Amino acid sequence: MSTETITDSRTHVIVLGGGFAGLAACRQLNDPRVRVTLVDRQNHHLFQPLLYQVATAGLAGPDIAQPLRHILSDQDNVTTLMDEVLRVDLDAKRVELGHGALAYDYLIVALGARTGYFGRNEWARHAPGLKTLAEATNLRRDLLLAFERAETTSDQAERDRLLSFVVVGGGPTGVETAGALAELARRVLVDDFRRIDPSRAHVHLVEAAPKLLTMFTPEQSEYTRKRLEKMGVTVHLGSPVSEVGEGYVVVSGQRLESAVTIWAAGVEGSPVTRTLTGATLDRGGRVQPSPDLSLPDRREVFAAGDLVALTDVKGVRVPGVAPAATQMGGHAARQILADLNRKERAAFVYTDKGSMATIGRSAAVAYVFGIRWKGFPAWFLWMSVHLMFLLGMRNRIGVFLSWMWSYCRWQRGARIIVDLRAPATGTAPDAKSA
Amino acid sequence: MSTETITDSRTHVIVLGGGFAGLAACRQLNDPRVRVTLVDRQNHHLFQPLLYQVATAGLAGPDIAQPLRHILSDQDNVTTLMDEVLRVDLDAKRVELGHGALAYDYLIVALGARTGYFGRNEWARHAPGLKTLAEATNLRRDLLLAFERAETTSDQAERDRLLSFVVVGGGPTGVETAGALAELARRVLVDDFRRIDPSRAHVHLVEAAPKLLTMFTPEQSEYTRKRLEKMGVTVHLGSPVSEVGEGYVVVSGQRLESAVTIWAAGVEGSPVTRTLTGATLDRGGRVQPSPDLSLPDRREVFAAGDLVALTDVKGVRVPGVAPAATQMGGHAARQILADLNRKERAAFVYTDKGSMATIGRSAAVAYVFGIRWKGFPAWFLWMSVHLMFLLGMRNRIGVFLSWMWSYCRWQRGARIIVDLRAPATGTAPDAKSA
Repeated sequence: MSTETITDSRTHVIVLGGGFAGLAACRQLNDPRVRVTLVDRQNHHLFQPLLYQVATAGLAGPDIAQPLRHILSDQDNVTTLMDEVLRVDLDAKRVELGHGALAYDYLIVALGARTGYFGRNEWARHAPGLKTLAEATNLRRDLLLAFERAETTSDQAERDRLLSFVVVGGGPTGVETAGALAELARRVLVDDFRRIDPSRAHVHLVEAAPKLLTMFTPEQSEYTRKRLEKMGVTVHLGSPVSEVGEGYVVVSGQRLESAVTIWAAGVEGSPVTRTLTGATLDRGGRVQPSPDLSLPDRREVFAAGDLVALTDVKGVRVPGVAPAATQMGGHAARQILADLNRKERAAFVYTDKGSMATIGRSAAVAYVFGIRWKGFPAWFLWMSVHLMFLLGMRNRIGVFLSWMWSYCRWQRGARIIVDLRAPATGTAPDAKSA
Repeated sequence: MSTETITDSRTHVIVLGGGFAGLAACRQLNDPRVRVTLVDRQNHHLFQPLLYQVATAGLAGPDIAQPLRHILSDQDNVTTLMDEVLRVDLDAKRVELGHGALAYDYLIVALGARTGYFGRNEWARHAPGLKTLAEATNLRRDLLLAFERAETTSDQAERDRLLSFVVVGGGPTGVETAGALAELARRVLVDDFRRIDPSRAHVHLVEAAPKLLTMFTPEQSEYTRKRLEKMGVTVHLGSPVSEVGEGYVVVSGQRLESAVTIWAAGVEGSPVTRTLTGATLDRGGRVQPSPDLSLPDRREVFAAGDLVALTDVKGVRVPGVAPAATQMGGHAARQILADLNRKERAAFVYTDKGSMATIGRSAAVAYVFGIRWKGFPAWFLWMSVHLMFLLGMRNRIGVFLSWMWSYCRWQRGARIIVDLRAPATGTAPDAKSA
């Protein structure tokens, strides 16, 4: 790329991906001997734990996103590039981007995971995942449009179909999405329609395992199921999906009508990880690094975050969650600094900060500080922790405001359909000057 | 459509368009003898006066939009339909929609205006207007992407081109957009890039007339020009656009490079108005109704808002602004109630509430309460009036928060690129549970 990068004696670290792992690495590499280039295909860091609230019209996209270059603007040794990662050439120590190539001394691959369909990628078209703002915005559009279409049609069967939604996957994302969707239909929208009764919407939550939220106790999983059913969600347990098509999902022999299907059932490594030829990949296309997170025989290349499949030296399987990604990103960066300091590298050890999932208004489950929580305390804890980890005071204030508003008024602040596919001509008067 | 509409003795009024005129009409028609169907292609009422702030990353789309059916949820005699208006059959008294047809007793056409290119519609592709959230969101994407691309490229000429922007039209929208764009480049983005200096961006404001903001005094127009130039905007007066192409605009012989061109120079009636065969249309395809806003020989059909070209009985040319639209919508509705009350219809008289335009931080011009304002007082007045007329307390609080934040921190809350064209696969770790 540009010439200034050549005449620079500092160690050049390229970080691929500006998620939790990538950002933590950049922060950790705040060292005069190091020059960092952060590459992401998006211009923003996304707080994915709240993405389902964008899809269900509770929050606006910008509430949970921050421009990467703004987050890092105070760190002069970081250059942020919004670009596509095409290939990694491990032998030449080069990364090929959409707009050029970059040479590195060290590389941290933190490209995250993408929605996985267990080899049935043709399902993706009918059952999008929930990993980017574009996916969340499109889902919001499709969900809100289904209710609008149901109001315009006079065909009863069509109405029922338009008011049927299927969420696949009983993990936190699936539970949170199904709960938010049920509340949207049964409480938020209920007074706004004249021809349909939104509370008659069918929300199905489908899970192949015999219980929801497998990482929690049976008692917490059972509580979650009961709460969801009380909110009007039909929970299908031990029900693997055998077919997904336009407008339907087949679950253990039963065909479920579905105007909108949301896939929250699995993740797999990003395609670029496959070019990490040095690395052994697991079935999900995830990288299996050495204990220090570097690649076998590639000490200058590290993997961090969701694309890592690792059991740490203490025998703990590292989960695909934000705290694990943050810890891995920081660890990889510290190993680079250790090299510069001629120090020994250390093995990565995952610290479990606990886990939590919200079900709906005043209802959540959590395992934090060694304590099992459920109900309102868990929900309050969930809100506090998410506000705390959300980047940017402005976003915190905005999200807090939205949550308080929804809680007091049973409203959602972002029930807006913005269809970038539609011809953009106005139906409202041009209203310059007041 | 559905049968219940047939077995209803109430007078059926169809309102086309949920802008300022349409909403005012619905509100006015809160009468037990009347049944109202509001049709809009969007699911939301849009506060267009602040749309330029969405395009320049200051506000998120949902901040200035409200779901129409929610605004009207407390008014039981209104049914809101999100649908496309295809045709109006004046003889059969029917409106043909994308999902069916509706018969009316009275019709209020308030479909607003769309961006007009003086017959050069091929320019639309290169110079989008600013009338819908979709247009604003795409413009925000294109503006932010231009800076990102400039940072990734190493070609200096390409960089200069990518940092050149042209706003066509010296009315309030053009002035506000150019000012916000200059502040974005010179103040907001200035510390966030490493290879480019955003403050070297070129923002051109092009106006065919010899002055900006023609509705204001020469002194106010001159103040506006000076302020914009002080903010780094190059103002071209008496400069009609002769050509618009991919990446350039030709202004009185001079070719201006332009990574993003924004068209704020004219409006014309929506295509549907052409099917109002009873009505005489002006060059801009706008309706010229009778003094009471009904169509000549079609007493049951009214036109209101931006698609109206009217000089009222007092000889005042009614401008295409929000207050005029609101007044017209209310007036049309009152004439329908007058018929039901066997009362005389009245001619529409426009009440000028004054006008205002903001230039940038602490700078605006206004003519309100018979007083000419400029500078900080005008800017403060502009903010207060816009917050007051913005619908929904939640949106008011959100916008106020964003404005205070930008004012104190020189930041913008929505510098997020959401490209719904892009393949939606995540680069950030999946971060469920905290």
